[in-house]
Amino acid sequence: MKKYAEMTKAELQAELELVEKQYEALKDQHLSLNMARGKPGKEQLDMVSDIAEVLKADSDYMCDGIDARNYGNLEGLPSCRKLFADVLGVQPENVFIGGSASLQLMYDTIAKCYTHGRVMSDKPWGRYDVVKWLCPAPGYDRHFKVSETFGMQMITVPMTPTGPDMDVVEELIRDPEVRGMWCVPKYSNPDGIIYSEETIRRIASMKPAAKDFLLMWDNAYCIHEFFGDYVPFPDILGECAKYGNEDMVFEFASTSKITFPGAGVSVFACSVRNMDYMKKLLGAQIISYDKVNQLRHIRYFKDRDGLLALMKKHAGILGPKFRCVLDALDREIAPLGIAEWQRPNGGYFVSVNTMPGIAKATWQLCKEAGLTMTGAGATFPYGKDPKDSNMRVAPSLPPIEQLEKAMEIYCVSMRLAALRKLLAA
Amino acid sequence: MKKYAEMTKAELQAELELVEKQYEALKDQHLSLNMARGKPGKEQLDMVSDIAEVLKADSDYMCDGIDARNYGNLEGLPSCRKLFADVLGVQPENVFIGGSASLQLMYDTIAKCYTHGRVMSDKPWGRYDVVKWLCPAPGYDRHFKVSETFGMQMITVPMTPTGPDMDVVEELIRDPEVRGMWCVPKYSNPDGIIYSEETIRRIASMKPAAKDFLLMWDNAYCIHEFFGDYVPFPDILGECAKYGNEDMVFEFASTSKITFPGAGVSVFACSVRNMDYMKKLLGAQIISYDKVNQLRHIRYFKDRDGLLALMKKHAGILGPKFRCVLDALDREIAPLGIAEWQRPNGGYFVSVNTMPGIAKATWQLCKEAGLTMTGAGATFPYGKDPKDSNMRVAPSLPPIEQLEKAMEIYCVSMRLAALRKLLAA
Repeated sequence: MKKYAEMTKAELQAELELVEKQYEALKDQHLSLNMARGKPGKEQLDMVSDIAEVLKADSDYMCDGIDARNYGNLEGLPSCRKLFADVLGVQPENVFIGGSASLQLMYDTIAKCYTHGRVMSDKPWGRYDVVKWLCPAPGYDRHFKVSETFGMQMITVPMTPTGPDMDVVEELIRDPEVRGMWCVPKYSNPDGIIYSEETIRRIASMKPAAKDFLLMWDNAYCIHEFFGDYVPFPDILGECAKYGNEDMVFEFASTSKITFPGAGVSVFACSVRNMDYMKKLLGAQIISYDKVNQLRHIRYFKDRDGLLALMKKHAGILGPKFRCVLDALDREIAPLGIAEWQRPNGGYFVSVNTMPGIAKATWQLCKEAGLTMTGAGATFPYGKDPKDSNMRVAPSLPPIEQLEKAMEIYCVSMRLAALRKLLAA
Repeated sequence: MKKYAEMTKAELQAELELVEKQYEALKDQHLSLNMARGKPGKEQLDMVSDIAEVLKADSDYMCDGIDARNYGNLEGLPSCRKLFADVLGVQPENVFIGGSASLQLMYDTIAKCYTHGRVMSDKPWGRYDVVKWLCPAPGYDRHFKVSETFGMQMITVPMTPTGPDMDVVEELIRDPEVRGMWCVPKYSNPDGIIYSEETIRRIASMKPAAKDFLLMWDNAYCIHEFFGDYVPFPDILGECAKYGNEDMVFEFASTSKITFPGAGVSVFACSVRNMDYMKKLLGAQIISYDKVNQLRHIRYFKDRDGLLALMKKHAGILGPKFRCVLDALDREIAPLGIAEWQRPNGGYFVSVNTMPGIAKATWQLCKEAGLTMTGAGATFPYGKDPKDSNMRVAPSLPPIEQLEKAMEIYCVSMRLAALRKLLAA
């Protein structure tokens, strides 16, 4: 197969007629498929549903001398703090166990900046006319939505194969109105990139002009390998502390992609100074989070090794799905030279960069053929991808036979969009 | 027994010597008792712990065609919305199911006023220098803490036997800086008062100067009778709508005192206009709340009748505890004329008003004898009871034999504080 860029107009025209026929044939199947969100598939959920069985007798609800069924222990059950401290490589005193969603903890952390300010802030951020925020992109659309809902001025930072472009970051943080930054350090959403040691060192040692700069370290995929062995990651709290930046960072994680999405437990980790401050503020918001669910997780996993063992089982389900996506792209798209993509070993996404100007059109063609993809542009601040190129493929939800069909639609749609674009040029 | 106020100085002195001996004898028992918070007792928790058993097979997790284990349905499972709509007397479309704590929903509702404003606001409340708030008192300390954390200027409204003093309220809401009000309409915390029909009509028909006035209707004890039959309550959304005030009110409830405190489900109910607005804002905060826990509650209760049947069982445990408190007060305190108290049929508290100036001293004496009570003053804004008189007794947590001992300490402490006060006068 020839690259599209090397085809003559006549060859492109012939290819277009062929691909249009393929597309119409797929459309005629009236499918309804979804690769839009990082939702675990049913097989993954079934695999962990025995977590419901760990609490039976009344005495099962006692943990650390605490009745998990009653009010109290705002910061979470000690055993649960220990479990996640071991996962994140921090101390239990650095860990706060929240509700069923780390997104809510992230939102709350930023909301409190706006209503109260950070522990070292001069005033609540709601009192500033402008709050600027660094958004490495492509990035996680829900992070950007949080920034957007608070009216932040989002500044796009390019992603490199080793993480955010730190030359750009180091320049931008000289502006005292730049008050924070989103990061997904391991298997970044959507690129699946692991930040390099050098990138992490440069982030941890930043000296932002804003003294209340907030590093939002969303370690959503910290133990989420689907190919190969577990990859260790540095403890960002410790890294920041090396440079006197221990109060700069909040780290987040959850079991949404370990047990149940939106029904697991979430955590943040931070310095003791931040913890004391957050506990004071959170104490006005809630008496205590759901400790019964915390207890289910403690009993089910027992320790970090128990968690890592389960993640191997998730990999057994997710690995073949990612293989399916990558194989289809390698087979159908690579020879045509109309897109490039990352080859992650973990996380929940494959990030595809099409030739400029066809992501939206590809998305639309997919939709019309019954395949819902993440909105083109969603991986950029304000939903605007300047190149109209990045597309996030989320292979986790569909069963493998549906996934094959979905990738057929996706590849044919992308070819069609590329051909139309090239022929219109 | 003579009333203390009618005793001569010599009689008071003799009584003091007697009561001091009783107090010292109690202190020598080195007890550790707690009547501080409205925590359900172990017997209540054990009674509902079989809720863990309702989800067993993978297929059990399907509800309304939705897999409760996965992301989605921000506003909650339809069946769960229906269940609470039936309890509150509203439509399912008016009901939003939140996480494990209604306090968090209340906090979030007010936090969004500060960061975004209400749907009809001119600007976020964080942009105002002053936000005033009406606090019927005695009231719920955690409500007042929410107001305090946002820097509201709290204005105390006296409670009457039929609810907040509406003459005072109607005068205060003429101030456009007064933007809201806390209410616990059924078995108010701590008084256990049910707002009268007339009070509710006057609240629902208010015409506050602030167009974004927020009526926070915390129906925490809406089905929480411990003596006698279930008492119906009016639907506040419908009442407000009668007067064109449908967007003024948010109603809150939870199962914290039905299943597990801090591990149940919480709800708010509001107009469709408010719901659309809140869903837009909450959609930036969370993908979906814990639907697995929602499903447990649906399966466990089935419908409103199921809930009411369980509340009868709670009454079987709580009724004797409240009887114990009231009997002790009737026996030990009533003849002395040093306090008065409410006689609620539901809720979680007995509100005691001592003679002025001895609540703090009574609290301190209790503490030194090993009994923790709700802080004196906690039932008033800023923790300041102008008469130093109101004390909240929470009989739910201790087993009945401990409760008898706790009431012994409480009554002796109050007598001692009264005698010292009278003799110092």
